[in-house]
Amino acid sequence: MLLQASSYFEMYADDPVTSIFMLRSKSGPAQSIRQEAFLTTPQLPVSEYIDGYGNICQRIIIPAGTTILESRVIAECDANIDVDTDAGYKPVEELPDDVLQFLLPSRYCESDKVAELAMQITMGIQSGYSQVGAIRQWCYHNISREYGTTNSSTSAVDVLQSRTGVCRDFAHVAIALCRSMNIPARMVVGYLYDLKPMDLHAWFEAFVGDRWYIFDALMPDPVGGRIIMAYGRDAADVAFASHFGNVVLTKMEVKVIKL
Amino acid sequence: MLLQASSYFEMYADDPVTSIFMLRSKSGPAQSIRQEAFLTTPQLPVSEYIDGYGNICQRIIIPAGTTILESRVIAECDANIDVDTDAGYKPVEELPDDVLQFLLPSRYCESDKVAELAMQITMGIQSGYSQVGAIRQWCYHNISREYGTTNSSTSAVDVLQSRTGVCRDFAHVAIALCRSMNIPARMVVGYLYDLKPMDLHAWFEAFVGDRWYIFDALMPDPVGGRIIMAYGRDAADVAFASHFGNVVLTKMEVKVIKL
Amino acid sequence: MLLQASSYFEMYADDPVTSIFMLRSKSGPAQSIRQEAFLTTPQLPVSEYIDGYGNICQRIIIPAGTTILESRVIAECDANIDVDTDAGYKPVEELPDDVLQFLLPSRYCESDKVAELAMQITMGIQSGYSQVGAIRQWCYHNISREYGTTNSSTSAVDVLQSRTGVCRDFAHVAIALCRSMNIPARMVVGYLYDLKPMDLHAWFEAFVGDRWYIFDALMPDPVGGRIIMAYGRDAADVAFASHFGNVVLTKMEVKVIKL
Amino acid sequence: MLLQASSYFEMYADDPVTSIFMLRSKSGPAQSIRQEAFLTTPQLPVSEYIDGYGNICQRIIIPAGTTILESRVIAECDANIDVDTDAGYKPVEELPDDVLQFLLPSRYCESDKVAELAMQITMGIQSGYSQVGAIRQWCYHNISREYGTTNSSTSAVDVLQSRTGVCRDFAHVAIALCRSMNIPARMVVGYLYDLKPMDLHAWFEAFVGDRWYIFDALMPDPVGGRIIMAYGRDAADVAFASHFGNVVLTKMEVKVIKL
Repeated sequence: MLLQASSYFEMYADDPVTSIFMLRSKSGPAQSIRQEAFLTTPQLPVSEYIDGYGNICQRIIIPAGTTILESRVIAECDANIDVDTDAGYKPVEELPDDVLQFLLPSRYCESDKVAELAMQITMGIQSGYSQVGAIRQWCYHNISREYGTTNSSTSAVDVLQSRTGVCRDFAHVAIALCRSMNIPARMVVGYLYDLKPMDLHAWFEAFVGDRWYIFDALMPDPVGGRIIMAYGRDAADVAFASHFGNVVLTKMEVKVIKL
Repeated sequence: MLLQASSYFEMYADDPVTSIFMLRSKSGPAQSIRQEAFLTTPQLPVSEYIDGYGNICQRIIIPAGTTILESRVIAECDANIDVDTDAGYKPVEELPDDVLQFLLPSRYCESDKVAELAMQITMGIQSGYSQVGAIRQWCYHNISREYGTTNSSTSAVDVLQSRTGVCRDFAHVAIALCRSMNIPARMVVGYLYDLKPMDLHAWFEAFVGDRWYIFDALMPDPVGGRIIMAYGRDAADVAFASHFGNVVLTKMEVKVIKL
Repeated sequence: MLLQASSYFEMYADDPVTSIFMLRSKSGPAQSIRQEAFLTTPQLPVSEYIDGYGNICQRIIIPAGTTILESRVIAECDANIDVDTDAGYKPVEELPDDVLQFLLPSRYCESDKVAELAMQITMGIQSGYSQVGAIRQWCYHNISREYGTTNSSTSAVDVLQSRTGVCRDFAHVAIALCRSMNIPARMVVGYLYDLKPMDLHAWFEAFVGDRWYIFDALMPDPVGGRIIMAYGRDAADVAFASHFGNVVLTKMEVKVIKL
Repeated sequence: MLLQASSYFEMYADDPVTSIFMLRSKSGPAQSIRQEAFLTTPQLPVSEYIDGYGNICQRIIIPAGTTILESRVIAECDANIDVDTDAGYKPVEELPDDVLQFLLPSRYCESDKVAELAMQITMGIQSGYSQVGAIRQWCYHNISREYGTTNSSTSAVDVLQSRTGVCRDFAHVAIALCRSMNIPARMVVGYLYDLKPMDLHAWFEAFVGDRWYIFDALMPDPVGGRIIMAYGRDAADVAFASHFGNVVLTKMEVKVIKL
């Protein structure tokens, strides 16, 4: 399916602030990028670099006053995501070197504290893809999607207590649970077609069988129509915007339409 | 200056061929990418990865028959390039680790064979930026720009004998000469506004003072209006298209206009 | 000063466990590695890879039963560390791209939660090196070094409540405080000569002026005699040993002597 | 088999020269490094970095006068190398991204000029491992091992004319031939047990089936007992020593013994 997605940010700063954005996509297994735009008002110099996960990062000095940033992408995306309940648990000793880091605890995914819960959730379930599926489903059924109950400090352990959160919180919990069972899991951020209410989205991938599979703990069922913008260990690695100073987001709009 | 640049490739293959393209740009010191498009007819899946130099590479399987590829970019570019005749020679012991590789000979730049010529050209000239400037000028005056006299096997040493070539040959000679004097030099490919006849272009950068500076041995004077697509040691690293099989380029058109 | 350092680990596992060690050093600004040994009993196959921070990692499958691992290194080390109270605060917009990641919160360093304390500690102090010095000193005076009061789940915020910990906890607090002020800070692990009681050690570096400087919140004064084994964002990145399964450390001994 | 290998270099320079060495090994599939030493007389500061291929590089400023460098390693090595004549040709479209670069021509391996010969050599031979085996054997039988007939400027095409060379020349020819058939090939440098006369050695690896396999065009038969020090595209990437200035090698001795 051909998707057009866009983000519109209106920001205000009293003083110039250095900011990093992650708003450009690379073509990959399930998406071919056709067009992109990255526009600022006023027109600002942008510098890009590749981070340690292969993401394209935009470095900008946001000037004092109001700045508008628009990012648009048109991409051909798989309408469905791969589901393979036969993909088994991959023993740690067979994992590629660069996948190992996604087994470790990270800022928002304290996998070292949730092993017991993970075992309860996956008890009796075939190891591998199906275990991750059970974790995904458990999150879907046991966490309420509520805006405003969590913030940028909220971690998986916090969410497991409050049982509320937004997409990134769902992903953090699921990632922490997977890692606690030695299943590599990483955070993914991007666009999802037909997300309601529409917003930038976060989900996760788990490494089972011989590769990464997409999972989304916020959705009742596996669904495609995704444009990936960045991968990382958790939200600390893949923030759409990191401001090293005070920037107020005065308006934000996200759109994803089918062409 | 705001530039819109585009490349149009019409290719024919008897059998499917894996190809790597380098036709997407990153924002950087002298360019801010505003819009991009990467379109194929028929629509083909694209997969992107980052190479060892930080370039964004497009991996595509070209199907049998005719394939059209269009790449477009709109970028805000510096109209002038930095010139600093005071930028001195940077002693090798003070070079950053990742710059050292650009001192070594490479496929098309046999710097180990041209030291004598480099010394002649730069005799009596202030070390650093001015030496590179002298090398650039020597190439401009001593190599004739002629299409069809060189091919993908032609190296700097070949060009020094034939004294003819296209932009990449000019760059290879200049790079080889710089490296022979222990000045790091790398190849750059992209678009140049007002190039005549218009084509994809190649030039080079040299590391003097504390950073990389742009030089173009094909031009009589330093001029900006450039959109960089890739960096590498020489043309082997930064081919716009590498086909691992037989692909015939039946038509190609490059445009760069000022918006 | 020429130092010989060694670690001896005796481990027991019921079943084979994949483990990652970080016990080899690279030569660098303040240390030249002369000799190294990495021995296991029984003799086990080792495979090494470079992680995203440039650290050399040893991947081993620990067999069932008892395994002994000995790592030794002889290195020429600077007896003193560089102190430069004039090194000023480096504005974020001037930081190198690869340093930016060390401004973000991480698993054990919740810099997003400690800004107020950081401001109190550094009030009225010259920005840059001296601020980091003040943070270091505050940690030294306000946290008690006590074994057994913290564990692998303890983060900077936890330590700020308990006010007790070991070297890594001191480093986590100091790193979180630095980052909250937009000063890049990273964790360092290795050996320290004359540490009492002797153990593997953790400290931190902060980026002020134009480079990284060493700081150690556990020591009353700046002191050298260090052999660095790994860099990372916090202890999650630079564990000496990460076991993906149950391994009991039955004995451990660390020695650092002057040759 | 447990091997102890060492290199002894005596060098003379009139003026200080920056030099890069590649004389430290990482543990890998067929070797576990037990001990290493890297000693200089006089004692010199060493700084290490990781290059784009994952090799550990030693950066040293060689002072004026005589410098001695000794590098020693003790490693457990496979006595035999894997041979798998069933490992088939891997189509380019299925190759991992980071393997693709080893299909391109490089400084010493002009694969764009030797396709015809490669086809002659491999005519009628099962595609994949056996083709590489045929190339290896052709080199063994058609190139004479002679010291002093080639130098640091000699490329595969040169060797194909002179039909003489040393180990690196054998490897360059074989690599160029493999790449001309779209089989990825890379250069390997290190120690080989029982090499006569003993010296530092160079061989190559080809990617067939699903991984890299070792081949050695200088040996009559496949043989193990190897300690790998570095990988690269050709000798330009993996020189044991690169001097950015004039350094005379006054004495060199290499030893490999079985413990």
